[in-house]
Amino acid sequence: MNPFTYRDNQLYAEEVSCSKLADAYGTPCYIYSKACIQSNYQAFADALQNWPTRICYAVKANSNLAILSLLAELGAGFDVVSGGELERVIRAGGDAGKVVFSGVAKRADEIRRALLAGIYCFNIESGDELDRLESIAKEMGIPASVSLRVNPDVDPSTHPYISTGLKDNKFGVEIDQAWDFYQRVAQSSHLHAVGIDCHIGSQLLDLAPFQASFEKIFELVDRLHGQGIRLQHVDVGGGLGIPYGPEDAAPSPQEYAQALHPFMQDRQLELVIEPGRAIVGRAGLLLCRVEYLKHTTQKSFALVDAAMNDFLRPSLYSAWHEISPVCKEAGEEALYDVVGPVCESSDWFASQRKLCIRQGSLLAIRDAGAYGFVMASNYNSRMRPAEILVDGDQSWLIRKRESVEQLFADEMIPS
Amino acid sequence: MNPFTYRDNQLYAEEVSCSKLADAYGTPCYIYSKACIQSNYQAFADALQNWPTRICYAVKANSNLAILSLLAELGAGFDVVSGGELERVIRAGGDAGKVVFSGVAKRADEIRRALLAGIYCFNIESGDELDRLESIAKEMGIPASVSLRVNPDVDPSTHPYISTGLKDNKFGVEIDQAWDFYQRVAQSSHLHAVGIDCHIGSQLLDLAPFQASFEKIFELVDRLHGQGIRLQHVDVGGGLGIPYGPEDAAPSPQEYAQALHPFMQDRQLELVIEPGRAIVGRAGLLLCRVEYLKHTTQKSFALVDAAMNDFLRPSLYSAWHEISPVCKEAGEEALYDVVGPVCESSDWFASQRKLCIRQGSLLAIRDAGAYGFVMASNYNSRMRPAEILVDGDQSWLIRKRESVEQLFADEMIPS
Repeated sequence: MNPFTYRDNQLYAEEVSCSKLADAYGTPCYIYSKACIQSNYQAFADALQNWPTRICYAVKANSNLAILSLLAELGAGFDVVSGGELERVIRAGGDAGKVVFSGVAKRADEIRRALLAGIYCFNIESGDELDRLESIAKEMGIPASVSLRVNPDVDPSTHPYISTGLKDNKFGVEIDQAWDFYQRVAQSSHLHAVGIDCHIGSQLLDLAPFQASFEKIFELVDRLHGQGIRLQHVDVGGGLGIPYGPEDAAPSPQEYAQALHPFMQDRQLELVIEPGRAIVGRAGLLLCRVEYLKHTTQKSFALVDAAMNDFLRPSLYSAWHEISPVCKEAGEEALYDVVGPVCESSDWFASQRKLCIRQGSLLAIRDAGAYGFVMASNYNSRMRPAEILVDGDQSWLIRKRESVEQLFADEMIPS
Repeated sequence: MNPFTYRDNQLYAEEVSCSKLADAYGTPCYIYSKACIQSNYQAFADALQNWPTRICYAVKANSNLAILSLLAELGAGFDVVSGGELERVIRAGGDAGKVVFSGVAKRADEIRRALLAGIYCFNIESGDELDRLESIAKEMGIPASVSLRVNPDVDPSTHPYISTGLKDNKFGVEIDQAWDFYQRVAQSSHLHAVGIDCHIGSQLLDLAPFQASFEKIFELVDRLHGQGIRLQHVDVGGGLGIPYGPEDAAPSPQEYAQALHPFMQDRQLELVIEPGRAIVGRAGLLLCRVEYLKHTTQKSFALVDAAMNDFLRPSLYSAWHEISPVCKEAGEEALYDVVGPVCESSDWFASQRKLCIRQGSLLAIRDAGAYGFVMASNYNSRMRPAEILVDGDQSWLIRKRESVEQLFADEMIPS
């Protein structure tokens, strides 16, 4: 579903006009659609209903408490990568028993907190990490459930920054070390092997690399089974992409499930998946206002009140995002670079977009629900934007705009 | 000066061992040297003493209140690019009358605040901005001092993200529009022209592009003078680089002043400069701890407790930073990729560095005083690090480490 549609040339978020949201909450602000998140989650739940499945939402994509609470109500589990994310899940009313803890460098205090909270399992990425987990589990007298993250050495053909399953990436352990790993776990009275996992990257628009990783991981599961190691679940990670550009096409959860079918059908295994972007990416936009138009002999710029500190994806990944006027005005379109106020050339949202706008016009940077606010900073001493959740004809402020005092409340001048 | 030196194989910040700082404040944390900041500031003041000069420190490089307070005590003015930065300067005891306000898209509320505070001048970047400033100055009955930021169309040969003086950048106005601009200012009773400015980019290691921009801007000053427009100051911007890598060499403030000499010597003009990185860059480091070492068939990784959310420069600009062990240990060195715990491959500090380290070793990411903490985020729900100022044998916590509760204190779950 697309929750952002035009009515009488005005962009709406579900039943609320974006222009009214800008009036009520100010700009820049992130707007999310509750119905869209629900629908995206449900599409995974429906597609995977033939197998016992844990959908562990990847908290890093969008960790606002209101979003986590909504997903918890829908029955989601959570994939967390830090103690901070685990704390968010608990604060949002999520079930710690449905949490998998991923990440290459879990600190001792994070492991302790997760054991106390009773998470479902630790996705372990190295031998040193297994050692640390075992010693903490022993010290606390709380056995730890573990899954080994293997690195399938599959090229996901995505941006190198979000490719994670190649041999020279920092993630996971090589497949041929799996047997040793599970042997070590079997010999420990403080560890309990529940699964195996892999994650090859993010924003994948093609099923082929998924299939290649499924081949490798399920073959490994069989081999381990033959060696007497019976696992409860296979965690195939996340990574399903969304169409950002007009030429992108992303596989649906249904198609993704079909790709899994030959692997899951005859095996007595639970499935774990870790979707993030596919659930929240298209459910959000970043609303901003044109502060100035600037025409040079080279090009025209729309200088907006959002910046790279609010939304880093274009700067960091050269990401393409659709930019829509909130009010479609009659008049001639011109080509604009849409840029922010931050004092460097990387503060840039889009190049050469056809827009009919003027000073004060509102723009929506689309598909900003994932890896949007979570990457926001205070660069240039800018306050981070507000976040709003829309539900039908209602809207809720789910994160206050930062105040200027908050910028330096934790700072102290030596006397 | 280099405030970070080894004594008995232990890295010191001035007179304090970095290892003791890590014990006292935890990791990751930023460590700054007061003496180094003072010395870098003084080098500019000394080099430019022949002319009436305002050194306006570029707050965006490092905006911690303690750093701003220190610079204010030394007599610095400030170059701010947002209302938040102005508020920081005021809170730190800086003199608003020594503030220049740069930036391509100043909001109305920021302009109002700056007029009320009585800043020295607005660096104006477009005709629309001049209109807005005039109308607010009129409405408030406070005349505004202005300087025009011209775009000299000079290639600074730096990273494209921090190049700002090319024709197709969003910054400044073209030189041939300057006459019209000053004519407009002269006709307004609410505006007062005090200067002209340019800034061609950041991290410049060569004087040639500076000289090219000086040629253009001083020629323009003369032309304007011939047309009856007498300006009080020329603001040549910032941008002087620092040596990050072993093969980098940066011009000294003295050499920079020599390059200015032919232009300043016979003109009755004040000089404004806006150094940032050159004052704080080498005065800081990011201290972190090795959580795990990980050896794969492809390479070895040092997984540290700092991440791209703490320090973005390597991810965003592919920046090279020296990485030093806090304790030089006897033993064999190995090649490591130094990476953080964040779940993407862009979370990376350095490739293939020779280090003799083990689990628990402390590492210092050097030259992190500029564009370090100011770009930090909470990505992966990680708490931002502490900041420490060292002064001789004393150390001061100048920003507390964030708490997990702060991550979501502003968020609300709709009932």
